[in-house]
Amino acid sequence: MDNMISHNNSPIGVFDSGIGGLSVVKSMMTHLPHENIIYFGDIARLPYGTKSNLTIQTFTAQTVKFLLKQDVKAIVIACNTITAVAKQIVYDLAGSIPVIDVINAGSIAAAKFDQVGIIATPATIRSQAYEHAIHRLNPSAVIYTQECPLLVPLVEEGLLTHPATELITRDYLNKFARLPIEALILGCTHYPLIKEIIRKVIGNSIAIIDPADNICKYLITTLSQNDQLNTSTDKPYYKFCLTEVPRKFQQIGELFLGHHIENLEIVTLE
Amino acid sequence: MDNMISHNNSPIGVFDSGIGGLSVVKSMMTHLPHENIIYFGDIARLPYGTKSNLTIQTFTAQTVKFLLKQDVKAIVIACNTITAVAKQIVYDLAGSIPVIDVINAGSIAAAKFDQVGIIATPATIRSQAYEHAIHRLNPSAVIYTQECPLLVPLVEEGLLTHPATELITRDYLNKFARLPIEALILGCTHYPLIKEIIRKVIGNSIAIIDPADNICKYLITTLSQNDQLNTSTDKPYYKFCLTEVPRKFQQIGELFLGHHIENLEIVTLE
Repeated sequence: MDNMISHNNSPIGVFDSGIGGLSVVKSMMTHLPHENIIYFGDIARLPYGTKSNLTIQTFTAQTVKFLLKQDVKAIVIACNTITAVAKQIVYDLAGSIPVIDVINAGSIAAAKFDQVGIIATPATIRSQAYEHAIHRLNPSAVIYTQECPLLVPLVEEGLLTHPATELITRDYLNKFARLPIEALILGCTHYPLIKEIIRKVIGNSIAIIDPADNICKYLITTLSQNDQLNTSTDKPYYKFCLTEVPRKFQQIGELFLGHHIENLEIVTLE
Repeated sequence: MDNMISHNNSPIGVFDSGIGGLSVVKSMMTHLPHENIIYFGDIARLPYGTKSNLTIQTFTAQTVKFLLKQDVKAIVIACNTITAVAKQIVYDLAGSIPVIDVINAGSIAAAKFDQVGIIATPATIRSQAYEHAIHRLNPSAVIYTQECPLLVPLVEEGLLTHPATELITRDYLNKFARLPIEALILGCTHYPLIKEIIRKVIGNSIAIIDPADNICKYLITTLSQNDQLNTSTDKPYYKFCLTEVPRKFQQIGELFLGHHIENLEIVTLE
């Protein structure tokens, strides 16, 4: 399929099952300050992590078709579950439009190290998607994983600097202090919001890898190669499409995004 | 519909969208030690709280039909969301079989007081189901509510005595210290597991109402009136039917139940 009808000022499409991917948009607003962005979050059908692969693939195909109708010039999969289960469908539907996913982005950065820690949700850890991606690039990398189920609800309740969040983070990350890891992947888009607590807990000698940084690098390189970076000096526009507006969305969404959220739209997928 | 074909040794059916209702089963195992119990938890279709009323009503009707096929002699709705949205369907389908729900049970106990606090999930608080039920019984009761979204994930991760759970509980319940409440309803089946932390935080002068206690009282009274209490001296049987077995179920389920879980069965509803 060839969807290459987009222009330099076409938006970059970013999607997630929820609001976590807004932390990726935050990073893009900093590193690609002239780009228009359209965000899609399938809040009404959350959580994806407990659904069947077929269901996730069906939802993902609907999402990608929606983004393609918005004339996007690149697609970012800002969700670990979707990447682990339905990445191929995104590449197939996108045709010649560049696609980048969080797991690939994080793994490229991590594969430079030989001893890597990964923190993520139980579903992402179970999928072993990061391990497989890192081992394809660096077969001798030793990988240690830790599931951190409570960090998502703590972040979604806005307890970013709460002592309870630090206590629980410390419980989860204690084991890394006894392991020779050189880098720690933030394998969930919620974790960059508590990066300071994570840094405090693991100390300064371990590199922290936020996949969003590498997503931005990839987008800059690829769009520049395709001569598709936005050269307009107009203020960029940001549009946020959700299938449902969750409780406290404005407040919590803005914590993820680091900016005021305007242009919020409720959409229904087919 | 008349389903009155059950016998004295027929089981009591208890259902919930998840595992929370196991705390109600625990209470029943103590107060009705001769009764057989069948538990149903719709784990595969969690969470109900974010679904439409029509969907919850459809799922509930399927569940009740499943329980009726197991020849239950009474039905306990151990889920606040289902009670708030789909209670009438349960009563209609159950016919002459007695039905009791957590909200009604908790409200009967609370209505004896004039100043009542309620803690629950955001969905239950928003439904105002407890307020309406209490005000029907005691129109002059003054009611104060507090949503506690993080207590469910903290309990489901087994952090029942963790300092983080106490810190967060303290944040949620602080306001009750400044209010003249006489009783506090545990408006979520997860909260009895951290009753000791809650007691520590609110002090000794406030009554704590666990709706499960009143569910047991109702069952004893009603089954006794109908001459349906189990008089067999056989060891009772407990069966646990789930639509999916969640991560760490054995470990966490047993925290709720306070007993070893045997007779676990995966069922599919129609």
